[in-house]
Amino acid sequence: MATTSTTSFRSVTLDAPLPLDSGRELAGVQVAYETAGELAADKSNAILIFHALTGDQFVVGQHPVTGKPGWWERMVGPGKPIDTTRYHVICANVVGSCMGSTGPASLGADGKPYAMNFPVITIRDMVRAQMMLLDALGIETLHAVVGGSMGGMQALSCAANFPDRASRVLAIATTARHSAQNIAFHEMARQAIMADPNWRGGDYYDGQSPDKGLAVARMAAHITYLSEEGLTEKFGRRLQDRDAKSFGFDADFQVESYLRHQGLSFTDRFDANSYLYITRAMDYFDLAEEAGGLLADAFVGAKETRFCLVSFDTDWLYTTADMREVVHALNAVAAPVSFVELSAPYGHDSFLLDVPALDQVVTGFIA
Amino acid sequence: MATTSTTSFRSVTLDAPLPLDSGRELAGVQVAYETAGELAADKSNAILIFHALTGDQFVVGQHPVTGKPGWWERMVGPGKPIDTTRYHVICANVVGSCMGSTGPASLGADGKPYAMNFPVITIRDMVRAQMMLLDALGIETLHAVVGGSMGGMQALSCAANFPDRASRVLAIATTARHSAQNIAFHEMARQAIMADPNWRGGDYYDGQSPDKGLAVARMAAHITYLSEEGLTEKFGRRLQDRDAKSFGFDADFQVESYLRHQGLSFTDRFDANSYLYITRAMDYFDLAEEAGGLLADAFVGAKETRFCLVSFDTDWLYTTADMREVVHALNAVAAPVSFVELSAPYGHDSFLLDVPALDQVVTGFIA
Repeated sequence: MATTSTTSFRSVTLDAPLPLDSGRELAGVQVAYETAGELAADKSNAILIFHALTGDQFVVGQHPVTGKPGWWERMVGPGKPIDTTRYHVICANVVGSCMGSTGPASLGADGKPYAMNFPVITIRDMVRAQMMLLDALGIETLHAVVGGSMGGMQALSCAANFPDRASRVLAIATTARHSAQNIAFHEMARQAIMADPNWRGGDYYDGQSPDKGLAVARMAAHITYLSEEGLTEKFGRRLQDRDAKSFGFDADFQVESYLRHQGLSFTDRFDANSYLYITRAMDYFDLAEEAGGLLADAFVGAKETRFCLVSFDTDWLYTTADMREVVHALNAVAAPVSFVELSAPYGHDSFLLDVPALDQVVTGFIA
Repeated sequence: MATTSTTSFRSVTLDAPLPLDSGRELAGVQVAYETAGELAADKSNAILIFHALTGDQFVVGQHPVTGKPGWWERMVGPGKPIDTTRYHVICANVVGSCMGSTGPASLGADGKPYAMNFPVITIRDMVRAQMMLLDALGIETLHAVVGGSMGGMQALSCAANFPDRASRVLAIATTARHSAQNIAFHEMARQAIMADPNWRGGDYYDGQSPDKGLAVARMAAHITYLSEEGLTEKFGRRLQDRDAKSFGFDADFQVESYLRHQGLSFTDRFDANSYLYITRAMDYFDLAEEAGGLLADAFVGAKETRFCLVSFDTDWLYTTADMREVVHALNAVAAPVSFVELSAPYGHDSFLLDVPALDQVVTGFIA
């Protein structure tokens, strides 16, 4: 994706500069967002959904770039667990991304894309921008914030830093701190992008984009999103469109073909520099560190918030053990929290897939 | 590594073409090898050690390229579990590799490097070449074959295909079949190499080699060699030579610095095309498939062979469950087998590291 971001997405321009954890600030920030369902007259029924690393604001409805259904159609909509006949759902593209919110592909004050002059952002910066979006929309308090994976990090960060903005916090398949292994996978992905000669220090917007590097990064990420069991069930060692091994380097195995497709198709919709910035924000995420070292201290302001945490037994990216640390911290401040580990074969991606037990948890918690 | 392989390593040239599983054959194959300890007059004390993906024949002593100690100094040597005052240890560089045995960097009949004209090889082809080496050395029966990781695959393949050549088979941290997840990681690595413009379809030996792609491949592999716990213990979220995060893309975290170093240093000693060929051989490895579908059938000829299998509880690349399948197959043919899962924090790399319990197992089994 070598084009600079356009303004064809629904968005607001924040009227004050966005303060950043780095000490810098970012002026003229656009926050692109979508909504579904009517906002009640007393504005009490708004739910903010945070998206994951490569997600976007198109939770429901047709995606304007890919033409595919929204990424959480199964969870959000009329009669769905997050019922848009009852709730006003908001989802905003995170700052640093490439679907209409200000990111490295956006034009800076000099009229050129920021590229690597874009400031390094954090999960808290992403949340701060969305709180300013709520201000612009005149919404003070949310019925709930909801997110899976990086969306769950934002939900926890929101609870920690803006405890008065949401009555309920639902965080799924996530963590309060990126582990060494999490960082390692992201660093490998960044090196893959930066190794692509088309990356050119990030200044590729007037030419070819580093699609090969970005595809390799995406392939590695996809492996972490699926469980070993899930990969075995889905692909095993089955061959792709052939009866015997080719004794060559074509994609003999279905899993190879799948990964190549996932890598290539991703480059059509995502900006490589955004991938660098967002993975960096995730690697920097450590709620305990923000609070001075003790995770419980991050939640002292959130004692009145209701929490629901969900992990999946086959998720090896953000594990049940990671989630238990959050539960213990919330227990330490006596915040009301329910926690469930669900059994699902799909690994980390379970939060996006057909897991009826998750639907039930979400339905019960949101109501 | 852009130079073609030299003949400065100790080697034999096989006097017959090497038959390959692909149906092709390879003429004039060199097999580079090293030995330690004296061969007994009756030739009854030879132990063949098989090396792993990026290993080589330099088990003990100073490595001629890196200057580092041999890769299994802790296990092999005078008074060590594989005691070179008692045993004659042989280790050969696998065919397809780049440390003196014939591989894609070697010169073909036309005087040019094979590059991608090198035939796709299998684990069984690697073993076959080493059995021909034994023939050349006049060694009929081995006291034992020993290997970890891909070395363990060769040990199992040797037992299945050449059951009369070894009295004992010690296979550590390995599997009888590459899983979908194993294949996925390798495919991602191959794509990283092939995405490097210096790769040029494999014809890079007269110019710059695809070091950036190979470094990314190595980084990904290193993540799979370590356990999440091991990474956390070794690095956690500790910063590298700084007190605070840089809010940039330098290697802030120690784990990032470690991975970058591992990636870069690897390119000094390994050939990218060899990485493609050897990972392909591993992905093709499925002993059950070779035997017609049932793993036990692979071992029908090995009923008289003594087996020892070792897994590590934190190894998520080749797991204890993978090893149990081998145990069950050996049980089904009533082959004598002892199996132990050792507890060690290092993940897959445990077979190379300081695990005293492994030393005891090896000592006991080899004696």
